[in-house]
Amino acid sequence: MRSSLILSRRDLDFLLHEWLGVEDLVKRPRYAEHSRETFDAVLDLAEQIATEHFAPHNRTADENEPRMVDGKAVLVPEVKQALDVFVEAGLMAGEFDEEYGGMQLPHVVGQAVFAWFKAANVGTSAYPFLTMGNARLLLAHGSREQIDTYVRPEIEGRWFGTMALSEPQAGSSLADITTRAVPQDDGTYRLTGNKMWISGGDHELTENIVHLVLAKIPGGPPGVKGISLFIVPKFLVDEDGSLGERNDVVLAGLNHKMGYRGTTNTLLNFGEGVHTPGGQPGAVGYLVGEPHRGLTYMFHMMNEARIGVGMGATVLGYTGYLHALEYARTRTQGRRAGAKDPDSRPVPIIGHPDVRRMLLAAKSYAEGGLALGLYCARLVDEEQTAETEEERARAHLLLDTLTPIAKAWPSQWGPVADDLAIQVHGGYGYTRDYPVEQFYRDNRLNPIHEGTNGIQALDLLGRKVVARGGAGLRLLAETIGATTARAAGTQWAGLAADLDAAVARTGSVTATLWGTGDPDVALANASVYLEAVGHLVVAWLWLEQALACEGSTDAFHEGKRAAARYFWRWELPRTRAQFDLLESLDRTVLDTDEACL
Amino acid sequence: MRSSLILSRRDLDFLLHEWLGVEDLVKRPRYAEHSRETFDAVLDLAEQIATEHFAPHNRTADENEPRMVDGKAVLVPEVKQALDVFVEAGLMAGEFDEEYGGMQLPHVVGQAVFAWFKAANVGTSAYPFLTMGNARLLLAHGSREQIDTYVRPEIEGRWFGTMALSEPQAGSSLADITTRAVPQDDGTYRLTGNKMWISGGDHELTENIVHLVLAKIPGGPPGVKGISLFIVPKFLVDEDGSLGERNDVVLAGLNHKMGYRGTTNTLLNFGEGVHTPGGQPGAVGYLVGEPHRGLTYMFHMMNEARIGVGMGATVLGYTGYLHALEYARTRTQGRRAGAKDPDSRPVPIIGHPDVRRMLLAAKSYAEGGLALGLYCARLVDEEQTAETEEERARAHLLLDTLTPIAKAWPSQWGPVADDLAIQVHGGYGYTRDYPVEQFYRDNRLNPIHEGTNGIQALDLLGRKVVARGGAGLRLLAETIGATTARAAGTQWAGLAADLDAAVARTGSVTATLWGTGDPDVALANASVYLEAVGHLVVAWLWLEQALACEGSTDAFHEGKRAAARYFWRWELPRTRAQFDLLESLDRTVLDTDEACL
Repeated sequence: MRSSLILSRRDLDFLLHEWLGVEDLVKRPRYAEHSRETFDAVLDLAEQIATEHFAPHNRTADENEPRMVDGKAVLVPEVKQALDVFVEAGLMAGEFDEEYGGMQLPHVVGQAVFAWFKAANVGTSAYPFLTMGNARLLLAHGSREQIDTYVRPEIEGRWFGTMALSEPQAGSSLADITTRAVPQDDGTYRLTGNKMWISGGDHELTENIVHLVLAKIPGGPPGVKGISLFIVPKFLVDEDGSLGERNDVVLAGLNHKMGYRGTTNTLLNFGEGVHTPGGQPGAVGYLVGEPHRGLTYMFHMMNEARIGVGMGATVLGYTGYLHALEYARTRTQGRRAGAKDPDSRPVPIIGHPDVRRMLLAAKSYAEGGLALGLYCARLVDEEQTAETEEERARAHLLLDTLTPIAKAWPSQWGPVADDLAIQVHGGYGYTRDYPVEQFYRDNRLNPIHEGTNGIQALDLLGRKVVARGGAGLRLLAETIGATTARAAGTQWAGLAADLDAAVARTGSVTATLWGTGDPDVALANASVYLEAVGHLVVAWLWLEQALACEGSTDAFHEGKRAAARYFWRWELPRTRAQFDLLESLDRTVLDTDEACL
Repeated sequence: MRSSLILSRRDLDFLLHEWLGVEDLVKRPRYAEHSRETFDAVLDLAEQIATEHFAPHNRTADENEPRMVDGKAVLVPEVKQALDVFVEAGLMAGEFDEEYGGMQLPHVVGQAVFAWFKAANVGTSAYPFLTMGNARLLLAHGSREQIDTYVRPEIEGRWFGTMALSEPQAGSSLADITTRAVPQDDGTYRLTGNKMWISGGDHELTENIVHLVLAKIPGGPPGVKGISLFIVPKFLVDEDGSLGERNDVVLAGLNHKMGYRGTTNTLLNFGEGVHTPGGQPGAVGYLVGEPHRGLTYMFHMMNEARIGVGMGATVLGYTGYLHALEYARTRTQGRRAGAKDPDSRPVPIIGHPDVRRMLLAAKSYAEGGLALGLYCARLVDEEQTAETEEERARAHLLLDTLTPIAKAWPSQWGPVADDLAIQVHGGYGYTRDYPVEQFYRDNRLNPIHEGTNGIQALDLLGRKVVARGGAGLRLLAETIGATTARAAGTQWAGLAADLDAAVARTGSVTATLWGTGDPDVALANASVYLEAVGHLVVAWLWLEQALACEGSTDAFHEGKRAAARYFWRWELPRTRAQFDLLESLDRTVLDTDEACL
């Protein structure tokens, strides 16, 4: 069988089973109905549907981005056709409870399944991605009635969902949102305001859209503490679940992006008076949970959403790598170094060391990022289903610490894998006749959305590593230490020693940064800190993968070892200069006056 | 006056006059008619025309790429309008001899002038860029008659030129071209073959197109030694200079690229029988110089072409930086770190340290690359007009050594500046409503064309630093040493010491790499070598700029110091890990079997 250029099933099997021991999860009550066979079956299904229904229109959707026609967002028909197959196969429900018609798959398996769709067509896969996140949030914080009314149709794939947070003037700074939600006598709210960057904000893919909207109730506390969360459906829902009046949520414009074009990205107006549900002005909204706790609810779901974005960045890099590898094996050009005979035959370009260097680098980023994403997804399962409270708390703390890295690291290095994929293709890679340029454009969004990488850096250094007296960082160090201890006496002892040194360095640098008493100095260097710790974490996961190869010497496992060695020799050393810089408490950026730029 | 977002005239004046002392050139006979005033006047003119005629259609040309209609390439009309103004202003002729109607500008001034057009609209500016390179090559190697027939109309801007090297199966490996040129009794040749990636290969901008084509004369030596260079005009030219028959050069297709869309990029068929000039098959070609020396002639012009590509990459990064700076000064969001009052006003985002970090990094890449490009252009002037043969030879050797860096370094870091420019803009930067995403797409071509960066790496490590017993590298070390000596006792002594150490390291690493006797080991690490030496060179040019600021303390010069400090503290240290890697003679890439990827 010709191997897929979307993702590597072989690698997924390695990560899930040879490394993460995912099959062990079936011993837990929640996953008792599952087995290696059911996991395999759903992965087979995902690969098949991604290959047959998602990948073929990836370019089509890029070239024919959503258009606004008569106030509606119109997409190419292939998007709906693919999503209908996805829903029909039960994949929207994959991770959800049986009681809602779900398969109760472990999150780590769900992420591996969904990776196929993101890699095949990130634009189309955004609709279910957002819907699943929306449903999860409501399951955690919505009322029974809200779950029955809105979540069930989402899990059934009949309605899709959005997350409507940002506004034109408030992207990263949600404290500044101005959308208002005024309470009504009947317990509902009426919303007015404008939301920006809302993916999936309008379309005709489903009969209704469930918007989750952040807004402020007048009289509440200022800033982020006064933000509440509301369900604002496109169509109001009658008591029997049928669709009622059109709510006053109106498509005000589409954003035209460099990539990710298949996903409608919208400007939405709430309560502008285009519709007047119930004869009253304002978009009807239903409060989720308690007032003023909206951001807390959102952040509760943020770990999974951010890991999801990191996974998207990884698999876009991964498919770029696979396409470059295929190209390098088939494209002939040039001679082996030292072959002076001009009559000798050109060789496949994979024979050139510099091409292999690029492929090895891309492999180490793509497979390293996938390991990171699945490791974090496994932690979500631990957090939710580990036997003891202590294990669950431990998983929660480690996941919390790793989340900014799981979002930002693949968002930085996945695009580099795509950049290398273009370079391997040469001029052909720069043309739209080959898919790698689209992966590159699509992937550029990932360092921006779901919290820019700069925000992730502040989250890691400003919150995660200092919370609870540094318990998160200590736990990460212990966890890495357990791995390096296992490497003693193996061929990986050198990598383990370098990792131990980098871990120690992280601890001392963190103490130095916060020891100044001047948070500005610390936070001005947060992005470098994030990069250094991110590389350390991925180097650790490469050691984990190398150790999981023990005893296997086939080409696949040798490839893992080669990438681990590459990451050790070529990548981990980057962190030394970064730690040096951090330790020097450099003030260059802080001291540069704005007028001098 | 609102400062330009295309380029900074203030910076150009600093580089040309406060640093490179370009005015000194007017003491030389070739530039005797010039003065600071004439240089200023042509720079003023360039800024004005770039602003008024090139920048406005940059997005238009991107969105309406050339189409093939009835076998012709059709462009938006703004391209011709802009180029007519450019030609009318005498800018095509800027650097050429007065005898051809030129201004005899120094190359360094010509590059500064042309930088405005590349930054404003890289797609449209490619036509004159190619034409000037074509004309320069013919001036150096063509016959008197060829110059009169083909070069004069090019300098007058009536005809444009191309460079037709690559073929579908032969991009980087010109040895493998198969286009044939068969000698005829009348001294002309008849060419048959297909050329790929030919920029400006067809259009209606000018009445004729002068193709410079590499082809093999049957019976010649195999490989690169059997390549000859031919003039193949789109229309044959009668003795009186008027246009005659259509030659058999046919537009076979257009390449659809991710960026650089304004430049027609073509597949051309030569001698396919669509036209039969003189009733005979084959495209009529005229040999330039001697048979089998085509590649030598091409390489003679390569330094300037490669510096030109590097300049393009730099100024695309530069304009990205300026747009990001403007955005960061006007876009408000978030609060100063530590400002806990939620009622405080949002600040311009330039107030956030992480935004300043990104701007400072982009500034250091853009202005560092511009310094590199103009320094090399100044060397071209030295090479051609310095008083003594020794000075000219010295300039030639240094230029030869720096050329792969001048091409590759900006091609790597200019796109990073554009990447940072998008990030500063957040979600807006990812939309096509802002120009930075186009700069990012356009700039991605630069590491590919005019010799991929991998080819530049082989050129530097495999040829330039070993040629003449390492004389090039020694000269570079001496030149850098002269700068660091001047820094003694200044605030820059620390940077100078780090530079001296890096220079010493370059020498020892080069010796180690070549000392193995195994060229594979050396060349497998060529790209890292190029990156490390490139960063060293740009750090040196930042020291040069910092020293040129001595005695000035206004915001502009403080900004130069801030960027120099940034490059010293944040960028130069990257090279340590790279040199360590090189010194270890790492075999990871070499030893990775193709089957393991």
